[in-house]
Amino acid sequence: MSDSIKVYIPATIANVASGFDVLGMAIDEPGDVVVVRKTTTPGIVIKNTLPQYNLPTNPAENTAGVSLMAYLKTIESDQGFEIDILEKVNPGGGMGSSAASAVASVFAANKLMGSPLADEELLPAALEGEQVASKAIHNDNVGPALLGGIVLTTSYVPLRVIKITPPDDLVCVVVYPHMKLNTADSRQALPPSYTMHQATEQSANLAGLVAGLINSDYELIRDCLVDVLAEPYRKKLIPGFDEVKSAALENGALGCSISGAGPSIFALTNDYDVAVRVMEAMKVEFGKGGLDTDGYVSKVNADGPRVLD
Amino acid sequence: MSDSIKVYIPATIANVASGFDVLGMAIDEPGDVVVVRKTTTPGIVIKNTLPQYNLPTNPAENTAGVSLMAYLKTIESDQGFEIDILEKVNPGGGMGSSAASAVASVFAANKLMGSPLADEELLPAALEGEQVASKAIHNDNVGPALLGGIVLTTSYVPLRVIKITPPDDLVCVVVYPHMKLNTADSRQALPPSYTMHQATEQSANLAGLVAGLINSDYELIRDCLVDVLAEPYRKKLIPGFDEVKSAALENGALGCSISGAGPSIFALTNDYDVAVRVMEAMKVEFGKGGLDTDGYVSKVNADGPRVLD
Repeated sequence: MSDSIKVYIPATIANVASGFDVLGMAIDEPGDVVVVRKTTTPGIVIKNTLPQYNLPTNPAENTAGVSLMAYLKTIESDQGFEIDILEKVNPGGGMGSSAASAVASVFAANKLMGSPLADEELLPAALEGEQVASKAIHNDNVGPALLGGIVLTTSYVPLRVIKITPPDDLVCVVVYPHMKLNTADSRQALPPSYTMHQATEQSANLAGLVAGLINSDYELIRDCLVDVLAEPYRKKLIPGFDEVKSAALENGALGCSISGAGPSIFALTNDYDVAVRVMEAMKVEFGKGGLDTDGYVSKVNADGPRVLD
Repeated sequence: MSDSIKVYIPATIANVASGFDVLGMAIDEPGDVVVVRKTTTPGIVIKNTLPQYNLPTNPAENTAGVSLMAYLKTIESDQGFEIDILEKVNPGGGMGSSAASAVASVFAANKLMGSPLADEELLPAALEGEQVASKAIHNDNVGPALLGGIVLTTSYVPLRVIKITPPDDLVCVVVYPHMKLNTADSRQALPPSYTMHQATEQSANLAGLVAGLINSDYELIRDCLVDVLAEPYRKKLIPGFDEVKSAALENGALGCSISGAGPSIFALTNDYDVAVRVMEAMKVEFGKGGLDTDGYVSKVNADGPRVLD
């Protein structure tokens, strides 16, 4: 068995409109590329973190380090590892960058150890790592980053996830505007409480969205990609949100909302050419507000992490 | 074409735990039996309403009368009808009695008129009738009473309903304790607002429940039959609720919660014999508190109303 492995971990769209806080999907692009090597002495070394992102190199503060320590505790091993991050989903973009890091180290290390745990059993360790970055336990990025596809989390104690096979033609658009969005601002934008009507409307839309995804019913997906709990309050933090969303819908998107905590905005379509047009229109609208962007058009990543080379 | 028709309209379980306010299911028993006749002069006569239930005979105050008037307005007809109610789901029991009445008259009249509207097009008129009884527009009883099966309502304006085909083996238990439950008390028991966590937990459970129903995944149905928005607050209005629910679960129910606004309690199972045992155990628990009960064990009614004779 090799002592070194290179893995690809997909970016993820969390808070999928009506799926706020509980639904996430993995996408083919972008993603993290990470090399993990066994070392001859115990301990974890974060060797390379891409200096432009200024990520912590102390393993106890680093998402990939914390998840790997949790993994080693689970399997009761003191094996040492070093971690090289070669490519990284942009941190702070709302595309699951910290979840990708958290998954990368445990997925790779588990392979190097001969897969003592099944992929799903890696979730708790990856969640511990993600918690370092997000300050809260949220599985809506970690779940799909590890398992691929579309993942609904119905419970944390016990942890229960449901994997939903995406419709064949579903295509995701994500546009990341080059701006900083303060996570504390994102949280403070949410109201302290909700009405019964808001809660039940969200529940019906999420149930409809999941039914639409299971049955490849794009009309239902379109009708139910509606977030009443977060988007109405958070959209003001993203300059041009309304115009970007309108451009996406006018160009044929099934729906459009904030990806994760933002500032990225995602849209879903059932046609690749439509998706490219939607992405370009979204970039144009951000550009009118003076924001540079990165745009991605991608299928749902059905399989999750993969070993490279 | 006949000038008279006798129809059977199923009772319904609304507020299906995590489906609070948005999901309902029709059951085979009990149900309303209603005769509707064309008359030679315009106007609606409520001829017989089962005196023990003390229902209004003024058509403008009677659920079946109001929905029928709304139907006639929709099809622009001044045809007269008289309505005989022969059997009735117990009003105030939480089993969709008013929805059954609201559906009965429009379903029957539409047949007598040569079906100018499709069943789904009868929903708005039936909802107007149901509103007389419930003081609010709720489709979670009317939808399944009219369309059969399990119905998710995702939007009222425009009205959007999704019919979910029930798993083959799903069996419903409803136990109706002979007690009055004040509707105003039921409403006032609910808190004025909810946390984000409550809202998203409900949404995830409903999405999981719907996925479980679509995929006949009984384990998922079991995990997701959890209502965090209403049951924790309303259950105190039903003496012995906790004991009845425990008895249902201990005897093999997948889940158990309040049917509609109560006082009936429903349970779901995937086995007829288990359902009978669950019903008996629930009745015993109510009996310990001195309450007489009616119990029903029934498949989901997949087809909705039917013409008798």
